Amino acid sequence: MADTKMAPAIVIHGGAGVILKERMTDEVEAAYRKMLAASVTAGYEVLKNGGSSTDAVIASIIVMEDSELFNAGKGAVFTHEETVELDASVMRGSDLQAGAVGGVKKIRNPVKLAADVMNLSPHVMLMGEGAEFFAKENGYELVDNSYFHTKRRLNQLRKLLGKDEVSALSETEHDDYEIDENKLGTVGAVAIDQEGTIAAATSTGGMTNKRFGRIGDSPIIGAGTYADNSSCGISGTGHGEFFMRAAVAHDICARVSYKGISLQQAADEVIQDKLAEMGGDGGVIGLDPEGNIIYSFNTPGMYRAAIDREGKLTVMLFKED
Amino acid sequence: MADTKMAPAIVIHGGAGVILKERMTDEVEAAYRKMLAASVTAGYEVLKNGGSSTDAVIASIIVMEDSELFNAGKGAVFTHEETVELDASVMRGSDLQAGAVGGVKKIRNPVKLAADVMNLSPHVMLMGEGAEFFAKENGYELVDNSYFHTKRRLNQLRKLLGKDEVSALSETEHDDYEIDENKLGTVGAVAIDQEGTIAAATSTGGMTNKRFGRIGDSPIIGAGTYADNSSCGISGTGHGEFFMRAAVAHDICARVSYKGISLQQAADEVIQDKLAEMGGDGGVIGLDPEGNIIYSFNTPGMYRAAIDREGKLTVMLFKED
Repeated sequence: MADTKMAPAIVIHGGAGVILKERMTDEVEAAYRKMLAASVTAGYEVLKNGGSSTDAVIASIIVMEDSELFNAGKGAVFTHEETVELDASVMRGSDLQAGAVGGVKKIRNPVKLAADVMNLSPHVMLMGEGAEFFAKENGYELVDNSYFHTKRRLNQLRKLLGKDEVSALSETEHDDYEIDENKLGTVGAVAIDQEGTIAAATSTGGMTNKRFGRIGDSPIIGAGTYADNSSCGISGTGHGEFFMRAAVAHDICARVSYKGISLQQAADEVIQDKLAEMGGDGGVIGLDPEGNIIYSFNTPGMYRAAIDREGKLTVMLFKED
Repeated sequence: MADTKMAPAIVIHGGAGVILKERMTDEVEAAYRKMLAASVTAGYEVLKNGGSSTDAVIASIIVMEDSELFNAGKGAVFTHEETVELDASVMRGSDLQAGAVGGVKKIRNPVKLAADVMNLSPHVMLMGEGAEFFAKENGYELVDNSYFHTKRRLNQLRKLLGKDEVSALSETEHDDYEIDENKLGTVGAVAIDQEGTIAAATSTGGMTNKRFGRIGDSPIIGAGTYADNSSCGISGTGHGEFFMRAAVAHDICARVSYKGISLQQAADEVIQDKLAEMGGDGGVIGLDPEGNIIYSFNTPGMYRAAIDREGKLTVMLFKED
């Protein structure tokens, strides 16, 4: 019998928005490129060693959650009340299993908890203190909300609210793009492992200045995240309300399944045509069952990186990169 | 120019499960039939008077939320902590606008709040205390959680937990079906108004004995509720985790759009084939842009009623009804 293992592949994003070379210092650009490469490599190592695509996307996203550069985990944006509230989701394409958490304040790596909801609970989605109680029951050490706080994000909130208690930033704490990142910062990963199983995951702090327990698309299966071995895996980043209303991630997979078009074409139809017509900004990354990697975004740029089935690493920030 | 107004139609459900004639007294059956007729008629009156399909589905669902017979609003099931936590969502098919609330404890009619999230906030989904704060800001009077409590539901929880503090029920408080209703009780409505706009809405108390801030499919746009004038409107009821993983409501609309099949066939493919293969119980109601009404469920029965474009009222409980 022939060896049926396939070469794995992985693609990640760190948010979409007005990401333009002319608005970025060389130092900041280098910092993003380095962190995106570290993130995608962490996931690829899992895949190369025979690990699952679920473990791979978690490994990649943890690198971005632990980095202050992205709106997820440490360095996430502040709510109206100057706290950080995090959402994440994971889906596995072999059996359509999924897990998600929303509005958690004390979980260092929400993507890991979303995976544990998938693997250890009969539920798909757990919210807030309930999700944290589940985490404690499963051995998680809760962190204080201040762990996530950064001066850069607090300044973004206070500027937005017209407050003047803004602190000076060090050189590495650039504060560009804050307006776009109000809505569009999110991280995600999609991978296919040697068994051919696709997994997708997304993690975010949501919108700067969010109120009322607002939940965006990142923890919603079908909106920000979807994975089905028969069509594709998708992770999205953008103005969450539009992604929910258009069921972006599921719609892309549905177009692949039912229209028989390529994943690139399906993603472009949803992101460039439908979402743009609705007025929604953002983008997606994706992988099809053959391991082909796609990007589609209607913003000036998207932080993104991939390692394809040939093992080739790509890191891109701008539209033309 | 010809009058382009179309005759309206509406369909509702009050949950799916092991609903069998031989397990129901005549009195209980009559009570359900009467309340289903009252609910669908309330929505139809709105439509007949030129009101919107959104207002119609809200009117129908409020009747069921206010009735103790259904697992929504008053009479909803208890959580593990002996409280009631409610979820609801609304979607309008003309512009894909949507609103949802999850985990609210003090809102008498969650479906109304979901519609206000759609109409009065820039967001799609608000959770828990945040949603209640938004309600207060918009003039809602909050009710005490005890408003929702019924002896019948408390008994269901305590029996499930093996506790013996179960109270005697009066004749009208039947306690059949508690096991199925742990998972499958939900109410919903889909309507098309004289302008041809489809709206769908769903409301629920979720699962008996739920913990950890568990959120099911009812407040998830694409899972329990979807409406798109170009394909269909859907409201689902069933084992929510499966509805979320299969993105049931959006998948049915996507099959209509991209496969060009009828709504009945699309719903049957998802409910009878896909969901059943995954092991998920439940059903949906739906309407297509021509006002054709469909039901599809893989359980022994579903509480359901409709008034079609000819004004004909139908009320059904069992598979053969």
